[in-house]
Amino acid sequence: MSADKSAPAKLKARQPRGFVDRGPADVAATERMLSVIRESFSVYGFDPVETPFVEYTDALGKFLPDQDRPNEGVFSFQDDDEQWLSLRYDLTAPLARYVAENFDALPKPYRSYRVGYVFRNEKPGPGRFRQFMQFDADIVGSGTVAGDAEICMLAADTMEKLGIRRGDYVVKVNNRKVLDGVMDAAGIAPAARLTVLRAIDKADKFPLEEVRKLLGEGRKDESGDFTKGAGLSDAQSDRILRYLELGQKLAELGKTNAQDSEGSARLSAAALTDLSGLVEGAENGQAGIAELEQIRELITAAGYLGRIIIDPSIVRGLEYYTGPVYEVELTFPVTNDDGQVVRFGSVAGGGRYDGLVGRFRAEPVPATGFSIGVSRLFSALKAVKSPIVDSRNELPLVVVTAMDNKSPEFMPGYQAMVAGLRQAKDAEGKPLLRADLYLGASGFNAQMKYADRRGATCAIIQGSSEREAGTVVIKDLILGAELAAASRDVKDSAEHKAKQAEAQFAVPVAELVEGVKRVLARHS
Amino acid sequence: MSADKSAPAKLKARQPRGFVDRGPADVAATERMLSVIRESFSVYGFDPVETPFVEYTDALGKFLPDQDRPNEGVFSFQDDDEQWLSLRYDLTAPLARYVAENFDALPKPYRSYRVGYVFRNEKPGPGRFRQFMQFDADIVGSGTVAGDAEICMLAADTMEKLGIRRGDYVVKVNNRKVLDGVMDAAGIAPAARLTVLRAIDKADKFPLEEVRKLLGEGRKDESGDFTKGAGLSDAQSDRILRYLELGQKLAELGKTNAQDSEGSARLSAAALTDLSGLVEGAENGQAGIAELEQIRELITAAGYLGRIIIDPSIVRGLEYYTGPVYEVELTFPVTNDDGQVVRFGSVAGGGRYDGLVGRFRAEPVPATGFSIGVSRLFSALKAVKSPIVDSRNELPLVVVTAMDNKSPEFMPGYQAMVAGLRQAKDAEGKPLLRADLYLGASGFNAQMKYADRRGATCAIIQGSSEREAGTVVIKDLILGAELAAASRDVKDSAEHKAKQAEAQFAVPVAELVEGVKRVLARHS
Repeated sequence: MSADKSAPAKLKARQPRGFVDRGPADVAATERMLSVIRESFSVYGFDPVETPFVEYTDALGKFLPDQDRPNEGVFSFQDDDEQWLSLRYDLTAPLARYVAENFDALPKPYRSYRVGYVFRNEKPGPGRFRQFMQFDADIVGSGTVAGDAEICMLAADTMEKLGIRRGDYVVKVNNRKVLDGVMDAAGIAPAARLTVLRAIDKADKFPLEEVRKLLGEGRKDESGDFTKGAGLSDAQSDRILRYLELGQKLAELGKTNAQDSEGSARLSAAALTDLSGLVEGAENGQAGIAELEQIRELITAAGYLGRIIIDPSIVRGLEYYTGPVYEVELTFPVTNDDGQVVRFGSVAGGGRYDGLVGRFRAEPVPATGFSIGVSRLFSALKAVKSPIVDSRNELPLVVVTAMDNKSPEFMPGYQAMVAGLRQAKDAEGKPLLRADLYLGASGFNAQMKYADRRGATCAIIQGSSEREAGTVVIKDLILGAELAAASRDVKDSAEHKAKQAEAQFAVPVAELVEGVKRVLARHS
Repeated sequence: MSADKSAPAKLKARQPRGFVDRGPADVAATERMLSVIRESFSVYGFDPVETPFVEYTDALGKFLPDQDRPNEGVFSFQDDDEQWLSLRYDLTAPLARYVAENFDALPKPYRSYRVGYVFRNEKPGPGRFRQFMQFDADIVGSGTVAGDAEICMLAADTMEKLGIRRGDYVVKVNNRKVLDGVMDAAGIAPAARLTVLRAIDKADKFPLEEVRKLLGEGRKDESGDFTKGAGLSDAQSDRILRYLELGQKLAELGKTNAQDSEGSARLSAAALTDLSGLVEGAENGQAGIAELEQIRELITAAGYLGRIIIDPSIVRGLEYYTGPVYEVELTFPVTNDDGQVVRFGSVAGGGRYDGLVGRFRAEPVPATGFSIGVSRLFSALKAVKSPIVDSRNELPLVVVTAMDNKSPEFMPGYQAMVAGLRQAKDAEGKPLLRADLYLGASGFNAQMKYADRRGATCAIIQGSSEREAGTVVIKDLILGAELAAASRDVKDSAEHKAKQAEAQFAVPVAELVEGVKRVLARHS
């Protein structure tokens, strides 16, 4: 390229960090995955609703997405009338606004599902984007834990419909009231509680002795950075650590018992008995345990025990949860970026948030719901090779080449061929194939490369001799590639020569669609 | 409500102007409409691609969406590194960025489709939103008008697949080079041309005498506001008006000839001959006419003549078009907001934009494409009662009532019933119904109202007497409503009583699903 200084500077084509493009295989597979989730949620009586991407900041603002990361922000801008607008950062805050605004018109309890992108104005990193998709289901206006149980069952059914086998996932349930009860029973001051919850949340990453430091004076990490602790007394820390040990024991047992309903039933019952001891005297905690008992009975009656288990180690980061919290964990092993084999981990979570709609209304409005991280679930489906995300699940492509594309008078003939192919239907009247006419200016070899690059099953060719004869050549690109890869001995055989005749043959123009159908039938 | 001043002020639940929520019927119907469009575009060999909602402002900025409305803006905000980001305002500018960034990796010509919301920071009004959906298809890297012809055929096929009958739509094609040629032949100065194009664009709204004022000194509207004109001489204006008269004559003929291919063929040929006279001496204009000739030959060969017509009155607002421009117009009558019967009008449009990708690259990259206004097309499908947007096209809903919802011990029984119903499949293994368990705290009458409000086909009821008998009552809400509406005479008849027994009957709990299937079969 010449460095001609008189030419205007070209813009650089680039994307802001944390935003990505998605190609055809991902878009099509995600679309299939979303339809399965839609159907699953719909069978549970949830109706779709869609809210816009932009809301008043004050309607979103009160609850930051995660108190664990107070610096993460939302994308905001001022309207003409100087009011602040923001891009939604989740699908829950807009739902609360929607329900409050349409309260009288909605059937209650109101079951809805929503899918779409949300935005976080935070530092992007590996697997951490500033635009990502969530798929949520919520029940608003129902205070019974039967609602929480329904959401957990919906989560379990949805995993199986997506091709994740029973035993490869588990839905874990806990209750914020139990956590509060443990902290009440330990006499922990309100000001220290958020720090305690954060420390509990670290128990799946750190050894318990490190968590003890976070509960006490504080902890210095390997780089020397110091994190101030919650300042608990030794007796207070002991109680929290007993709670965490119980949680870890149960999680360990859960791994081996997830497929064994009897075992899980014993496990859940034992967990609840052990918990009772830790919340003695705390009314809130006892109420939380009673709710977990009810959930256990509901999932037992509906046949979901073992797929849904009680796990006291579940905290969930969001501050607005007020009762049951739940998380969908995939238990099959994957290799992480550091080469370690780990469980795949969480792909969805949620809980009861009885205060969120109440911000807008005089009366309290109980609600519960969960959110699927769509990209993460998509990776999981790829990891288990679910047929839903198989990119081959598409119509075959036929490329009509334009041998004489320097002469515009031949294009109408090629155009008629591709138009005819696009009308081809299967027995049920559905399209049989995708058909593409080469519209570039390159020669025949480049056109065949184009057909290969696009993954075409066959190519259609008409040069001047075919045109004079009223015929067209159909080239089977899959069979052709097989034959080209054959050894020299095989290539001399009569069988090979017969196959070559199958791989490329001429038909009268009027029989083009029939000829193509023969080729497609070979590879279906 | 008490006006307790100590209570914190409640937030008002409201939406920013120009943004709207969409309920279940609209979301589901739009989803069906989008799948039909996806399939239609896919059959033409277009691959999906998705770009993010946020781009660098400079990557979007050079081409404002519409030079006709220079004040309309984009939503923008600064990133942490002070670079400006914007919400995309269309799907074409992001495509240009995507193609430029991935140029070597893409097969060329590159056919892609994209669907999604775009954002305009402009004054909202009736039917004018700040967030709306577009569905685009583009061919990048092909300079031949065969690409423009393909897009027009794709547009026509898509309309028919969506349920818009042949004759109820027409794809109109013109060429910017012809417009330029007419202005060249008239000797119109470059500075006046944008004003001239805007005046031409008004020809479908104003009588030609008013357009003449816009071409000349200027025009005062009814309110007294003055719009400055293009300042053409009388001879120059005469030539533009002859051009417009030709356009209007053809459009008028087009209305009666759209279903008559022979008539349309004559019409198109006549239009091209008449145009030649108006661009005499202007090389550009002659080239544009030659391109329209080629398009006419291509659509004739592929069998689309009559559905696609040449119409010199098409301008298209966007400044970046460089060749053929096209518009999909729905020709059936609708009543507008003022009570007048008018044609439905444009639902999609596009054209060739050979400069857009070239902004990023050293070499020129020709491209052509079109954009469907999804909301407007959705209204059109409702107007023609297309089955694709019929909201009844959904699975029937069964509501399990919770008669003893004050006592949590009965909930597991109801939960088991709804879980069983959700497993019901049809012969092909697809879900047979949607099932909902009432999770509110209200009594039985409110629960039956809830079932009605949700449009349930039947309700499931189990009180204490049924529980003791091991049965459950199935209530057919559709048949029940019919019987309730019957006259008193009919109600005394034996036939009516027999039907009442069908409308509400008890079955053993184990036969619940079979009983519900009987009710659904009545109404399928």
